[in-house]
Amino acid sequence: MRLCIGIDPSLASLAAWGLPETAEGAGRFAHCLLDLAADAGLPIKPQVAYFEQFGPAGFIALAALIAEARDRGVWVLADAKRTDIGSTSAAYARAWFGEAAALRADALTATAYMGLGAIMPMIQAAADDDGQVFVVVRSSNPEGKALQSHGTPPVWQGLMAELEALNKTLTKPVVGAVVGATQLQELKTCHDLAPSVPLLCPGVGAQGADLAALLALPKALKERMILPISRGISGAGPDPKSLKDALHSYLSQLG
Amino acid sequence: MRLCIGIDPSLASLAAWGLPETAEGAGRFAHCLLDLAADAGLPIKPQVAYFEQFGPAGFIALAALIAEARDRGVWVLADAKRTDIGSTSAAYARAWFGEAAALRADALTATAYMGLGAIMPMIQAAADDDGQVFVVVRSSNPEGKALQSHGTPPVWQGLMAELEALNKTLTKPVVGAVVGATQLQELKTCHDLAPSVPLLCPGVGAQGADLAALLALPKALKERMILPISRGISGAGPDPKSLKDALHSYLSQLG
Repeated sequence: MRLCIGIDPSLASLAAWGLPETAEGAGRFAHCLLDLAADAGLPIKPQVAYFEQFGPAGFIALAALIAEARDRGVWVLADAKRTDIGSTSAAYARAWFGEAAALRADALTATAYMGLGAIMPMIQAAADDDGQVFVVVRSSNPEGKALQSHGTPPVWQGLMAELEALNKTLTKPVVGAVVGATQLQELKTCHDLAPSVPLLCPGVGAQGADLAALLALPKALKERMILPISRGISGAGPDPKSLKDALHSYLSQLG
Repeated sequence: MRLCIGIDPSLASLAAWGLPETAEGAGRFAHCLLDLAADAGLPIKPQVAYFEQFGPAGFIALAALIAEARDRGVWVLADAKRTDIGSTSAAYARAWFGEAAALRADALTATAYMGLGAIMPMIQAAADDDGQVFVVVRSSNPEGKALQSHGTPPVWQGLMAELEALNKTLTKPVVGAVVGATQLQELKTCHDLAPSVPLLCPGVGAQGADLAALLALPKALKERMILPISRGISGAGPDPKSLKDALHSYLSQLG
């Protein structure tokens, strides 16, 4: 399991750090966590909504964060949950992947209610830029269950099988899946159902996923799992030493 | 049926208009179509992906468009297909709804793979700001069918019934549905299944929905339908008279 530092400059987190509830505050918050990630050699996952909430100024702060991370060799997963169809999906791809992209990330989260085929332009752009797309398959929130578990086989298993099949057509595993760390049974199913699919597993920390139970999963499965931690780390801030201690507490649990 | 002018500043459309493939080009493209909409008293639907493709500069152009539309009394539906859960959904809500929103729209498109409950913060913010959220239910693209039609009842019908039930708890129909204008049978089903739900029906023009068949739908259903037209109008530009002629050709067909 690889840890990833979630960057969630919510108004509550900015207030807790004594920062202004502005794009500038979000930028300062983000850069502290980028420092932590760079020092520890870990990836970051900025949650795009917390930048978008400040409109254009928020995107300026996000673009600066992403550019600095790239300069410092920190892998960036933009958590944007984007989706659309055809040439519109291609426009999102242009925003997030490729040398000319204004928000060039290493990976992006996407959703696929309109079909995996609809977001192929994003996946192709990721493949061309040595990037990845993580598609939401089984989310960590309780409200997601009814739709995702509907039918036989359940929606989420059908989508996961599609991701596995798609990766087999590519030279490397470009598509990953978001599967909540709270969904232990589903994670176990992924072991056999989708052995090529990297798994982004949010839910540790504030959402209460059980780290000990995750550690008991099969080794080959754990090796594909990325665990983003947001409030579990930023909640200790803004003092750099406190942040580092919070991070190391998670790292030592992961062994 | 109400017509809505889609604003899709794709690279192809910018090139066709002789505009630079930049945020500034997108802004000029958008303002020509806003002029057309304001003169005709029609709403606009900017596709956010075509602004996001230019990064922060694209959002500056989008914010300027939205602000000018608001000043001129033009109703704005931001086609962003946003989604997330809990406080992250609330951050998207803060971006798009409310007096302090940097991108304050009258309506927003959203998706609900993570459950309708997950995007309630957006819906509540819309309700508080006299706005609306249109949730993708049955999309116009062929790749959407497998997931949306999966199970019994099909996923899309379950979601549509949820939207109907939600509107009944609100003082007005805050939640609408995106149902492709290419999905005639599904539109007919909506007549009984979801009588309170406004319908955004993309697909006329470039995607080949049959306008005559739509005109033959029941009157009460047609009254709830919004038809966005993008390339069908902008394809005639950039000359204002040509745009106006293209628009009036659609308006005369709608009667």
